[in-house]
Amino acid sequence: MREKVLEAVGPLLVEYGFDGLTVDAVAARSGVHRATVYRRWRDVGGLLADALDAAGDDDWRPPDTGSLEGDLRALNDEVQEALAEEPSVALAMIAASFRSAEAARSLRRFCEERYDRCIVVVDRAVARGELEPPVEARKLVVSSTSPVYHHRVLLHAPPDPALPAEAARAAVLAARAGAFRSPPRGSSGRRATDQAAAKAEPRTGAGTEPGT
Amino acid sequence: MREKVLEAVGPLLVEYGFDGLTVDAVAARSGVHRATVYRRWRDVGGLLADALDAAGDDDWRPPDTGSLEGDLRALNDEVQEALAEEPSVALAMIAASFRSAEAARSLRRFCEERYDRCIVVVDRAVARGELEPPVEARKLVVSSTSPVYHHRVLLHAPPDPALPAEAARAAVLAARAGAFRSPPRGSSGRRATDQAAAKAEPRTGAGTEPGT
Repeated sequence: MREKVLEAVGPLLVEYGFDGLTVDAVAARSGVHRATVYRRWRDVGGLLADALDAAGDDDWRPPDTGSLEGDLRALNDEVQEALAEEPSVALAMIAASFRSAEAARSLRRFCEERYDRCIVVVDRAVARGELEPPVEARKLVVSSTSPVYHHRVLLHAPPDPALPAEAARAAVLAARAGAFRSPPRGSSGRRATDQAAAKAEPRTGAGTEPGT
Repeated sequence: MREKVLEAVGPLLVEYGFDGLTVDAVAARSGVHRATVYRRWRDVGGLLADALDAAGDDDWRPPDTGSLEGDLRALNDEVQEALAEEPSVALAMIAASFRSAEAARSLRRFCEERYDRCIVVVDRAVARGELEPPVEARKLVVSSTSPVYHHRVLLHAPPDPALPAEAARAAVLAARAGAFRSPPRGSSGRRATDQAAAKAEPRTGAGTEPGT
């Protein structure tokens, strides 16, 4: 039942936008009784949040190409492809995160959990001798992905085929030059701070219209 | 008259959100007759676009601290501050860019024009001998700013005081290691391509609800 309901969220969101995504529309499309949908998900924010949680509940693993630069490039290709699809559920979810504080929280959780899974990319690079530990894996991976997001999400620019490789290469060069050094894992510091911050509330208000 | 009208856009946007930003509300707040506002700006998309154009029509220059890393860090501080304000007009404009294709185009124009003004930061670094030319200045600066945007715009995370300096340092290390090499200016290639792309239409559809 949950699957049926959540499967209706993405298509409705990309087809009709946030304003067309209503509990009633989700109920109608999924064939689940509207009272049930209201009881379990309450509102559109609840539906979006649970759809993002469900999307994160998969067995996705980052690419394993044999080199750090290859892995980061393949990861950036995945990001750019997800943002370039017409229609793009990823972009629609990002847009929705400005309308619902609940969706914003779930989007953040989803992204951070994806970045957690990417730590293995950096661990493998260290094991191969490509990088000298300690390296702040999350910061390195975010450094690689963020120009791709910047291009599509902030600039609304058409996909740039060269960007995934360029951004991956820049992150690798920065890492090799010592940009993402960190205290060893398990020690206090940034890592623990990041985790605490990830649990904190995202800011609401400016730019967000948590009307749901 | 234009100034009076456009000055009303930002405050209404942050106070009431995109849905509360109407031509009538802008007319009322600015004291300009609504027929005049409709005639000149047509709709909310037109008002947002012109407000962004007006915001770009200033004498802003990137920081000049005496070093490439210092300049990029100060620039990142400015970006993070603009995104951290409560309320943040910058964040509200980014949110609005998902609602109006016209606002998205103007946001992109605004950002690209800011990045053009930042080329001097890289020129100064080259003149000081900090970097070996040729360097793709825009790519270097975007590499520095994009983790800051990623943090606030994608993750909706609270400002991270360490991030501006970390992102600036990573971009400088990558640049020194040769990440943003380019053909010399004036030659064909990426630079010309970027400019052509900046004039192209931003994608609409997925994630955007250009209802205005």
